[in-house]
Amino acid sequence: MPYLFVRPYLTTRGLVPENQESPIHFIESGITSARNHFKRNHFAYPSLASFNYWIPIRGNVKTPLWLSLQQLYALPFITVSTLLECAGNKRSLFEPEVFGEQWGKGAMSQGNWQGVQLRTLLTMAGIQEGSVEVVVEGYDKGKRANSDEPVSYKRSLPLEKAMHTDTLIAYAYNDKPIPFRHGFPLRLIVPGWYGMASVKWIKQIEVSDKHYRGPFQAEDYVYYPEKDSDKGSFPVRVINVNSSILRPTDRDLLSRGTHVIEGIAWSGSDEIVKVEISVDNGVSWTEADLNHVGEGNYHWKRWFYEWEVSKPGEYTILSKSTDESGQVQPTKSFWNRKGYGYNAVDKINVKIE
Amino acid sequence: MPYLFVRPYLTTRGLVPENQESPIHFIESGITSARNHFKRNHFAYPSLASFNYWIPIRGNVKTPLWLSLQQLYALPFITVSTLLECAGNKRSLFEPEVFGEQWGKGAMSQGNWQGVQLRTLLTMAGIQEGSVEVVVEGYDKGKRANSDEPVSYKRSLPLEKAMHTDTLIAYAYNDKPIPFRHGFPLRLIVPGWYGMASVKWIKQIEVSDKHYRGPFQAEDYVYYPEKDSDKGSFPVRVINVNSSILRPTDRDLLSRGTHVIEGIAWSGSDEIVKVEISVDNGVSWTEADLNHVGEGNYHWKRWFYEWEVSKPGEYTILSKSTDESGQVQPTKSFWNRKGYGYNAVDKINVKIE
Repeated sequence: MPYLFVRPYLTTRGLVPENQESPIHFIESGITSARNHFKRNHFAYPSLASFNYWIPIRGNVKTPLWLSLQQLYALPFITVSTLLECAGNKRSLFEPEVFGEQWGKGAMSQGNWQGVQLRTLLTMAGIQEGSVEVVVEGYDKGKRANSDEPVSYKRSLPLEKAMHTDTLIAYAYNDKPIPFRHGFPLRLIVPGWYGMASVKWIKQIEVSDKHYRGPFQAEDYVYYPEKDSDKGSFPVRVINVNSSILRPTDRDLLSRGTHVIEGIAWSGSDEIVKVEISVDNGVSWTEADLNHVGEGNYHWKRWFYEWEVSKPGEYTILSKSTDESGQVQPTKSFWNRKGYGYNAVDKINVKIE
Repeated sequence: MPYLFVRPYLTTRGLVPENQESPIHFIESGITSARNHFKRNHFAYPSLASFNYWIPIRGNVKTPLWLSLQQLYALPFITVSTLLECAGNKRSLFEPEVFGEQWGKGAMSQGNWQGVQLRTLLTMAGIQEGSVEVVVEGYDKGKRANSDEPVSYKRSLPLEKAMHTDTLIAYAYNDKPIPFRHGFPLRLIVPGWYGMASVKWIKQIEVSDKHYRGPFQAEDYVYYPEKDSDKGSFPVRVINVNSSILRPTDRDLLSRGTHVIEGIAWSGSDEIVKVEISVDNGVSWTEADLNHVGEGNYHWKRWFYEWEVSKPGEYTILSKSTDESGQVQPTKSFWNRKGYGYNAVDKINVKIE
C-alpha cells in the first residue's frame, strides 16, 4: 500500500475563476472522485441566492414547461458513465505556445452522471417544426476581456445531439447530488463532446429555430488555424482520439530492470481499438495491452506495457492510439490560436541509470 | 474577498516519495502555512515506530551527549524566520532539459522555525581539536537507483556553518510542533542554504574530523557542469540570487488597462536591494517597488510594479534582482546535469486583448 496516508491534490491553475487540474498521474484511473475531478470555470462562482429552482423549457415548443427539481427527480432517469475533457486539455504542449490556461494532461476526469435524458424534456414540451438547436444557459456570468456588459455562459446543441439518448440533464455524480462547483443542481452532460458543451448550473433550456452566436459559441471554443486572422475557423465539438502516458512521469530517473509503462486512451467518436508504444522515439512500435473490462462507452481505456531495459541512457517513450473509425493520433497536433483539442502522440523522456 | 471558499492546493509531483510543490502563485506571500509548505522527500516516510526520542551528539567531542526531547525543550531557544528552497526549484526551466522532479517555481516556502541553536549542543558536548564537519543523519532511508543497500539521508555541514547563530535544531514551525512530514520531532534548519541541508527527522549528530562523502553529499547536490563527465563539479550550498513573477501567471490573457505585476526576490548570501522589471523582453528596465516591511533576514522580499498597457498584443515580462553583495540574476542560468540552483532572470508571456 504505497499510497497510504499520502494523497495527490488538484493542481491550481487559477482561483478566480477557479481552474484546477485533476492529479491524473497519481490516481487510480477508474472513476474520478468528485474531490479529484478537474474544475474549469469561466467566471467566479454564481451566487446560490440567485438561483430559481424551477427550470423553464421554452422557445420553439408546443407546450412550454416550468419544472421544479422535484418534478425532474420524479421523471425516468438513466446513468451515463463518461469522461469529461476540457477542450484546452494539454494546451501547454502546443508549439508554438498559445495563451490561456496552461493545462497539462489532467483537464479530464470521468465518473457516473445520473439524470433525465434531455430528449425526455424536449418530447414533453413538443419541439416545433423548423427547430435547429437547443440553447442551454447557466447561472454563471461575468464580464469578458473585450466587453463591458456581463454575459452568461450559454451554449447551443444541434437538435440531433440534444435528442441523443445519452445527453443528460444530470443531477447526480457518483450517486450523490452534483457538488455545487460541478454544477448543482442541474448540469447538462454531453458525452463525446469536449467539456464546454456540458453547461453547469442550468438556468433555462430553450429550443430555437436559429443558430445561436453567443461568445462561448462563436468566439471561444472555435478552432482558429491562423494566428492573425479568423480564416478557416470551425467549431470545437467531438473529443479527438488521444492517449496519455501516466506513469512513469516525464523526466523520471529509473533503475535498470522491468518497468510498467501505463496510461489511458480515449476518443469521442468511437471505441479505442489499439494503443501502440515506442520506447525509441518512434523508430519501432509495439502494441500495449488494452484493458477492456468494466468500462463504459465513453470511458477512457487503460493500457499497460511491460518494458525491460538494461542499457543506461536517455529514452523517449511515445504512445499512439487508434479508434474503431480508424482515427489515429497525429505526430504533431493541429495548431490553432486558442489551443483546443491537442491530441498529438504522447511523449515522455526518462533516464535509466 | 475574491478567494472566498476557493483555495489552492499543493501541486503533486510524486507520491512515493511524496514531492509536492507549494501553490506559490496563489497564496499571500508572507508566512507559508504548514499545509501549503512544499514537501520534498528522498524516500517513503520513515516509520515513527523506528524512532528513538533520545538524540545522540557524539563523534569527535569531549563529552558525548544523549539528550531527550524534554531536555532539548528545556534549553534556551530562538526563532528563525526563513525561507527554504529546494535546490531543484525551477528545474523544469533548464534548457536543455534535465532529469529529476520537474519543479516549477513553488519548491520554496517560508515560515518561523523554532528550536535550539546547534552551537548550543556542540558547545555542551565540547568540540575536539581537528574537527572539520558536523554530520547529521535523518531517520529517512531507502535504496537508491544505483545501489542495493539502503542508505540513510545524511549530510554534513562545515564546522563554521554548524556553529552559525542561526543554524537550528528546530522542533516547531509557526508555533506548533513540526508536522511529521516536515521532520517531526527535530529538523536541522540551515538558513541561506538550499533545502537539502535542512535534514528532517534527526537521528543523530556527529562531529567529525573527516570530510563526509555519502551519496547525498558527494553524488547528489553537486553541480555537474558537463553532461557526460563529472569534471568541474562542486557542491550545492548557498541559495542563488533569484526572483519570481507570481502574478499574472504565464500565458495569461489580460484586458487593456492597469495591471499590478507582482512577485518575490531572494538570495541566500545577502539582502535584496533592487528588482528591475522589463515589459519589452529586456529592451528597457524599470525598478519595481520593494516591500521592506516586517520581513526577516532570510525572507524573500515582495515587489510590485504597476503596468499601464493600452496596446493589444503579446508581451514578454522579465524580473531581475540584485543583492547587496552585487550578485545579479543572469540572463541564462548556469546549466548543470542534475538541474540545481536555477536562477535566470524570470520570464512570463502575456497577451493583451
